[in-house]
Amino acid sequence: MSGDITRIHTGSPANLTERFAHRAAHMKQSEIRSLFAVASRPDIVSLAGGMPNLSALPMEMMAEVVGKLVRENGQEALQYGSGQGHPKLREQICEMMALEGISSHPDDVIVTTGSQQALDLISRIFIDPGDVVLVEAPSYVGALGTFAQYEAQVVHVAMDENGLIPAALREAIAATRATGRKIKFLYVIPNYQNPGGVTLSAARRTEILDICRAESIFVVEDNPYGLLGFDGPSPNAMRAEDSENVLYLGSFSKTIVPGFRVGWALVPDALKDKLVIASESSILCPSNFSQLAISGYLSDQPWRDQIASFCGLYQVRRDAMLESLDKYFPQGATWTKPAGGFYVWVTLPPEIDTKALMPKAIVAKVAYVPGTAFYADGLGSWSMRLSYCYPTPERIREGVKSLGRVINTEMELRGISN
Amino acid sequence: MSGDITRIHTGSPANLTERFAHRAAHMKQSEIRSLFAVASRPDIVSLAGGMPNLSALPMEMMAEVVGKLVRENGQEALQYGSGQGHPKLREQICEMMALEGISSHPDDVIVTTGSQQALDLISRIFIDPGDVVLVEAPSYVGALGTFAQYEAQVVHVAMDENGLIPAALREAIAATRATGRKIKFLYVIPNYQNPGGVTLSAARRTEILDICRAESIFVVEDNPYGLLGFDGPSPNAMRAEDSENVLYLGSFSKTIVPGFRVGWALVPDALKDKLVIASESSILCPSNFSQLAISGYLSDQPWRDQIASFCGLYQVRRDAMLESLDKYFPQGATWTKPAGGFYVWVTLPPEIDTKALMPKAIVAKVAYVPGTAFYADGLGSWSMRLSYCYPTPERIREGVKSLGRVINTEMELRGISN
Repeated sequence: MSGDITRIHTGSPANLTERFAHRAAHMKQSEIRSLFAVASRPDIVSLAGGMPNLSALPMEMMAEVVGKLVRENGQEALQYGSGQGHPKLREQICEMMALEGISSHPDDVIVTTGSQQALDLISRIFIDPGDVVLVEAPSYVGALGTFAQYEAQVVHVAMDENGLIPAALREAIAATRATGRKIKFLYVIPNYQNPGGVTLSAARRTEILDICRAESIFVVEDNPYGLLGFDGPSPNAMRAEDSENVLYLGSFSKTIVPGFRVGWALVPDALKDKLVIASESSILCPSNFSQLAISGYLSDQPWRDQIASFCGLYQVRRDAMLESLDKYFPQGATWTKPAGGFYVWVTLPPEIDTKALMPKAIVAKVAYVPGTAFYADGLGSWSMRLSYCYPTPERIREGVKSLGRVINTEMELRGISN
Repeated sequence: MSGDITRIHTGSPANLTERFAHRAAHMKQSEIRSLFAVASRPDIVSLAGGMPNLSALPMEMMAEVVGKLVRENGQEALQYGSGQGHPKLREQICEMMALEGISSHPDDVIVTTGSQQALDLISRIFIDPGDVVLVEAPSYVGALGTFAQYEAQVVHVAMDENGLIPAALREAIAATRATGRKIKFLYVIPNYQNPGGVTLSAARRTEILDICRAESIFVVEDNPYGLLGFDGPSPNAMRAEDSENVLYLGSFSKTIVPGFRVGWALVPDALKDKLVIASESSILCPSNFSQLAISGYLSDQPWRDQIASFCGLYQVRRDAMLESLDKYFPQGATWTKPAGGFYVWVTLPPEIDTKALMPKAIVAKVAYVPGTAFYADGLGSWSMRLSYCYPTPERIREGVKSLGRVINTEMELRGISN
């Protein structure tokens, strides 16, 4: 590298941290992120990350898709594109959503840089500082981080093995309104929830949609895992039942690959223009190359079969995890039984602090995400999220066994009966 | 498409527009965007857009780069990546910035989804509603849109053929502070400015850096066109002279291709963590595929020669435009003489409203961007931006000739001597 500072400057540089906007105080490293450096060490069995497993993806086929794209349509693929997203891909997205009962038009789809960007844009359009967002307890760490940056107050609503509990939602709405705060929307991950691993039942979907209409609260339905069911298909999307009061977020990160960063939002007409303008301000336009690579893959490849093979791969790993949990975890622990997706949520006796336990787990060469990461309010200290998506079944068994040993030792140490 | 709404809903959906955040009122379609639908008709010579010309890019070579990437490194390229960006690419970015005299470390580089995202993130971190951002008069429409969304007040500072005028900067700072408003930063495009086409002289760079230090204002240097000089290299980057008080934004959109959406920010250490966290909240991580495609291209291909051939292509087009302006535009018009980049800024007699003139230009089958698009304060009504980057030299001559005729007719109509 050449070049250097060639001048002695007079005056001091501006103190950047003193100039931060108010919202910058809410930009904090998530617990899950600071973990990744440790969890990615090859000697550690990581049950922490949510990376999809790409071992079942035929790379030669994907290489042909991207090579052909540049050769046959390079002038378009490598150029700037539309802020809303490529029309061809938006059509294909509608076909894909139809698998979950959604009737939609490509005009109402906005392509985003992963569905994380859709979350960011929706927050930007709706959240004033102090506004309340209702979310499941626990919920996706990336959504909590974004809501915090826009200075929302997050109110958690209880779940059980059938997902968000309608009575708890009614209660949370009443309690929030009693304090005079404004509720902006309900954020929900109905299928194979991250981190809960549970699926919202069909009957509850209807009931929750009715509650939200009655209370004039709209629903943000985040559905990255919907097509990854092992025990039959998931219930129809909430958006399939209510096209006017649900903003739907989808993603190709788990059904194809995350490396292209392509997700989307399907929104009511009244929101579309604002969403496109907000996205243009944020990134100008989503990558034409990424969009057309996904589009080419959907056109030319047997993508339904590929999703089926992903499901097979994840099912074997889920089974390995549930079997090992039965075998190695103490009686005082309980966990969810996911019918799809990537995650199991484990609840330990309340005396166990899963964050404090992490260093011992790392010594035992296994990593997980402590439950507190998934709560905006400090709860979750005796829970953990275990991911089965990435390691081999053998490694999963090994990791759960090590972790079981760490937990058992901790319980003995604390005199908790097992 | 299958599936439909199967239930009669009770209650009304939430009224979305009533629930918008305060900032949403500032999310407005830019004039330049609404133009593009018309300007992209094939019968129109578009001197409006800023799309780089990819005709000199060897597509076969690019097809090999992306195919090889998937075959040899697909598991990484198609997976989630680091929020800060890929370490290999960040090293290569530092090598590229060294061409403009910048000494930097890969740890201080954050890869973004185009440099538009860097602008968005910097705005998010620094701008509270009502804060002032100083910008050139005129300035990049995409930056103005982003600053508006974060509810900044934009104060324009005059330029001449040597770029931003230091005395005007001093004056703007004093006048702004006299009203009690807080100045957050100076945003400047020093090379081949968009839309002005002018370049900030080396002496003025130093003077402006000194003013900003003395006034404790930091500088955001946006430099997408810096390597696209026709008449010799541009002066060293401002960041080369002051590593502490300048945030530098770069982009591969004009030097390689825009379709991968890869840009970057080089920032002082105090800002890095916040910027990474804000980016993770916005998009989780930039596309590994896009980054590694750019990285592979930089490693394996003669990219300096490729930039030289882009320069040759743009120089011919600039020459065609300047010659045709001399030939076909009325005496009452003046324009800048860009030494690089994509744009010429034309000033007409003040009686001519370039926005009102657009329909007549479209009838004459030529499009441009009216000057008001580049001002936050409504100025610029007798100016226009002409781009020479995309059309062939023949089409440029044809377009400028038609536009000259439209302007001449308008001047006669208004009784302005020519």
